Amino acid sequence: MAELVERARAAEPRAVARLISLVEDRSPLLREVSAALTPHVGRAHIVGLTGSPGVGKSTSTSALVSALRATGQRVGVLAVDPSSPFSGGALLGDRIRMQDHALDDGVFIRSMASRGHLGGLSATAPQALRVLDAAGCDVILVETVGVGQSEVEVAGLVDTTLVLLAPGMGDGIQAAKAGILEIGDLFVVNKADRDGAATTRRELRAVIAMTDRADGAWKPPILLTTATTGEGVAEVVDEIAAHKAHLDQSGELTRRRLARIRREIEGLALADVQSRFSHLSADVRLDTLAEQVLSGQADPFAAAESLVESL
Amino acid sequence: MAELVERARAAEPRAVARLISLVEDRSPLLREVSAALTPHVGRAHIVGLTGSPGVGKSTSTSALVSALRATGQRVGVLAVDPSSPFSGGALLGDRIRMQDHALDDGVFIRSMASRGHLGGLSATAPQALRVLDAAGCDVILVETVGVGQSEVEVAGLVDTTLVLLAPGMGDGIQAAKAGILEIGDLFVVNKADRDGAATTRRELRAVIAMTDRADGAWKPPILLTTATTGEGVAEVVDEIAAHKAHLDQSGELTRRRLARIRREIEGLALADVQSRFSHLSADVRLDTLAEQVLSGQADPFAAAESLVESL
Repeated sequence: MAELVERARAAEPRAVARLISLVEDRSPLLREVSAALTPHVGRAHIVGLTGSPGVGKSTSTSALVSALRATGQRVGVLAVDPSSPFSGGALLGDRIRMQDHALDDGVFIRSMASRGHLGGLSATAPQALRVLDAAGCDVILVETVGVGQSEVEVAGLVDTTLVLLAPGMGDGIQAAKAGILEIGDLFVVNKADRDGAATTRRELRAVIAMTDRADGAWKPPILLTTATTGEGVAEVVDEIAAHKAHLDQSGELTRRRLARIRREIEGLALADVQSRFSHLSADVRLDTLAEQVLSGQADPFAAAESLVESL
Repeated sequence: MAELVERARAAEPRAVARLISLVEDRSPLLREVSAALTPHVGRAHIVGLTGSPGVGKSTSTSALVSALRATGQRVGVLAVDPSSPFSGGALLGDRIRMQDHALDDGVFIRSMASRGHLGGLSATAPQALRVLDAAGCDVILVETVGVGQSEVEVAGLVDTTLVLLAPGMGDGIQAAKAGILEIGDLFVVNKADRDGAATTRRELRAVIAMTDRADGAWKPPILLTTATTGEGVAEVVDEIAAHKAHLDQSGELTRRRLARIRREIEGLALADVQSRFSHLSADVRLDTLAEQVLSGQADPFAAAESLVESL
């Protein structure tokens, strides 16, 4: 394991891929991987990229990778597909994604399916991010489709959240409903060559001005890009760096990371408790309790209480 | 509480609304509510209704309510909005939904926001369903937007899952990707007056024929409706009843309900454990452990272990 981690730290792609696979498959070695990585993490700037289907997330991610590479930074990409709860692997494999960067050894790209079980995305992604971090990535982009709770979930995994919109799709009410205004540190209106980009930006600015931000100092910029041509993407890279500087100076980086680690520890502890539930003696086993509730002999709260007390 | 439950059982709307509010607000009385309801639940047939935005879910729900009422059944509707993790209440209030049924005392309609915390939809909805069940509803429709994992989540809450599609939206790959083929007991192609409805049905039939179904006997029917005119909706009601009969005869109803109750008990137990985590002594408190992980003194797994052991 120590050797594998050393090879990953030397940015050897196969070692990085192997470690992420161990994490994704929840290998029994997971604990050992995590312990071995611990001294080598905390350097990467983790940036979440979210938005509704159709705003151009993959193209934007690819354009951002190019722009980040142009500044000499090493880049990791974790593409999460939350629409696939049943699949064990993402539908879009690593190989067919972002072929532009396939031969660049300063870029690691990985797709992950977020599973349907407890914790979902949040259960495996932090460990995968730790691997990319230890492998020397300066920036790690976490790309996810912004549906349901997944965009809020992704904001909980990253240092900086970038929300992508497209003209005509991002009117104020939609944005407010999806809860993205609260989570966005940067807003990017992509497809800026289309009609309505300026209107979308104006509307967005108006609704953002109305949201309360406890973190007073940072005003989320709203940028325009055309990811297909790369227009405006360098400015996004600048703003990502500016937000990182703000996080560092304000102490907000430490606060966000501590909150993230707290949630991660709590999630791991709850998963541990859950696995203990399945090893209890027959009279307090979930099956028995469920039968009592079905037959009206117990209510669910009383059943849950006996379960916890028997730990 | 006993009196409130009695009034709800007598189908008094204000008592039903009050009980659901207690559930939704996670009132300290929740346990008492749950215990008082326990002897009176298990009769209602719970039907989930899911589909992508734009397929006509609200109109279909309203048309189904009319068709169910025409057969003399009492109907409950729980409309869940999973896109609103921050809001404490759904954006569409109960009053502006489905005004056609506002004066019908055989119908209860309730909107709920699914929150962003652990368990989401699955944490409060079962209790709300229990209230509607005890209030004498013969059928309860649970309507939710089919995005991300929410449609899989809703399938876990109901006896019968109805998946809505519209012409041109439901091609095989999309459906397979969203995981809806595995969860659907009934498929309804709405907007059947539009071009392509027959094609969508044919494609859907082809992909459904390819899915493995452990429960061999039931072949999910694919129906055509025009919810705005009510065309085809009576047939959907017939198929809902046919599926209920199949569930009863095959023993699958008991299996599904036991699995559901098991998950509910487990969810309540984990929430209880989670609340205990926040009452631990300072040296094993989450804050302290998170700081150790951030500084590289501990890995998240070791931290989670100390948390569980200190319970």
